[in-house]
Amino acid sequence: MNEIKIFSPATVANVACGFDVLGFCLDSVGDDMVIRKTDKKGIHITKIENFDLPFETELNVAGVSALAMYNAIDVDFGFEIEIYKNIKPGSGIGSSAASAVGSVFGMNELIGRPFNKTQLTEFAIKGEAIASKCEHADNLAPALFGGFTLVKSISPLQILEIPSPNDLFATIIHPQIEIKTSESRAVLPKEVPLSDAIEQWANLGSLVHALHTSDYNLISNSLNDVIVEPYRSQLIPHFNEVKQAALHAGALGAGISGSGPSIFSLSKGLETATKVKEAMAAIYSKTDIAFEIHVTKINNEGVKIIS
Amino acid sequence: MNEIKIFSPATVANVACGFDVLGFCLDSVGDDMVIRKTDKKGIHITKIENFDLPFETELNVAGVSALAMYNAIDVDFGFEIEIYKNIKPGSGIGSSAASAVGSVFGMNELIGRPFNKTQLTEFAIKGEAIASKCEHADNLAPALFGGFTLVKSISPLQILEIPSPNDLFATIIHPQIEIKTSESRAVLPKEVPLSDAIEQWANLGSLVHALHTSDYNLISNSLNDVIVEPYRSQLIPHFNEVKQAALHAGALGAGISGSGPSIFSLSKGLETATKVKEAMAAIYSKTDIAFEIHVTKINNEGVKIIS
Repeated sequence: MNEIKIFSPATVANVACGFDVLGFCLDSVGDDMVIRKTDKKGIHITKIENFDLPFETELNVAGVSALAMYNAIDVDFGFEIEIYKNIKPGSGIGSSAASAVGSVFGMNELIGRPFNKTQLTEFAIKGEAIASKCEHADNLAPALFGGFTLVKSISPLQILEIPSPNDLFATIIHPQIEIKTSESRAVLPKEVPLSDAIEQWANLGSLVHALHTSDYNLISNSLNDVIVEPYRSQLIPHFNEVKQAALHAGALGAGISGSGPSIFSLSKGLETATKVKEAMAAIYSKTDIAFEIHVTKINNEGVKIIS
Repeated sequence: MNEIKIFSPATVANVACGFDVLGFCLDSVGDDMVIRKTDKKGIHITKIENFDLPFETELNVAGVSALAMYNAIDVDFGFEIEIYKNIKPGSGIGSSAASAVGSVFGMNELIGRPFNKTQLTEFAIKGEAIASKCEHADNLAPALFGGFTLVKSISPLQILEIPSPNDLFATIIHPQIEIKTSESRAVLPKEVPLSDAIEQWANLGSLVHALHTSDYNLISNSLNDVIVEPYRSQLIPHFNEVKQAALHAGALGAGISGSGPSIFSLSKGLETATKVKEAMAAIYSKTDIAFEIHVTKINNEGVKIIS
């Protein structure tokens, strides 16, 4: 096999009470990528469609993660990468993570899978870091492993796969506004009240238990972020209206996807997730803010081979 | 049935990363209590053995929780309570919780179980509050439900039963020193670094997952308290030595039981838990601090009828 086409999915990180640790993987939203073995050594990005991203390997997220892996193997050939980018950079649903994951997953397949998914995450972290200016894996882990993942720690890298009920669907709306990463970081407090922190970890412990036991009511009860959302939601116009509309339409919970501006919600069943879509869309339709909206089941497989 | 004898177990609260929310139930340590229907209306404490505790119903933890329940039922009889107290008050293994739970559990049995365990916890909270000066359920919940419990919230009261592996044993050492509740509260910071809070909830989410999946290594990895232990451990002489001795002897983890001074550890298997006992005891044996030490499996039943 000299060439592989893969689908690298979008993901939601910072799932409410799971700020900085919990993420999940989307099914029908993601990038396509082609990875090809070539006689020419090194990593070469030969095509990027839809968005204006750098072709220089060292400046491209997919290129940097690919290089991290390339430097760890000893081969007498190289790789070409084609990126068919569908996830808009800066949308808050793991655009850079999809790129970072896709290249290393595809290369690993082409050379006989010497690396496990945790090792692939280690390479992908290097790519993700040039986009987000810090090493984190909360989008990478669900993109690679699928389903819900909890990144217990970065050093050493420990990723836990949390089971989730079959009938869980996500609705994600992306208002086409820009939030600078620096701004979304700057609004976070350095210190938080101990009582809020306790409430947050009670909710996260409860959410993990609820996912294990397929308890939809408890999932709903646990999807609360008392620490970060009060600050970051102020950067997203109409956040509270969208969240309330989603809940009113039957969503189990809603929150900021990643560092925004996308807003995610989780619902039991496709029918409810579709009603939630209409309710969320109705809010931004009344404004002059353009938006995209997706309804998707949770993707339990993660990044995968198309052909 | 006019009389019932029950065993009300000791418990460990504030289980490392589960500060204020997670607890577990001990098997061979606890109080015996006799609850008896009487013609005389009201709640009457007729016997207290081993410790000097108040006989006045309104001043006694078991009495106050019993009264809370008694005021919620309409009966033309009363109850007598005998307390055979084995858990030393102030030891940090849920002495007051055992009393608060025992009376309401026994009364509920005698009147045909009109209340579920969450409702019994609501009554017991009233008794616990006179001992600890605040309404909390982190010892009550494991005493009533058994096993590991997560108190998701107090208002409304939500208690989750977290499954745990069969071969999990606790070793608990009680150095006979007094820590004033006011002092153990005063050392806690009002605010904590966000980065520490994130580490704590990553650990708690991970611990809940590890308990669900019987992953002993992950239980061990997750039993870390980066928020409270650094402060409260300073109130317990030789805490770090005891903890290190427990870990060195093979314990999965160790930490402060409740607000101390007891120190708990968890181990896989009775043999390791017994080695841990010897290692922990060896530290205090070199000092002039008297101590008690217990090895017990996790009690998955909670408070129970003896006869």
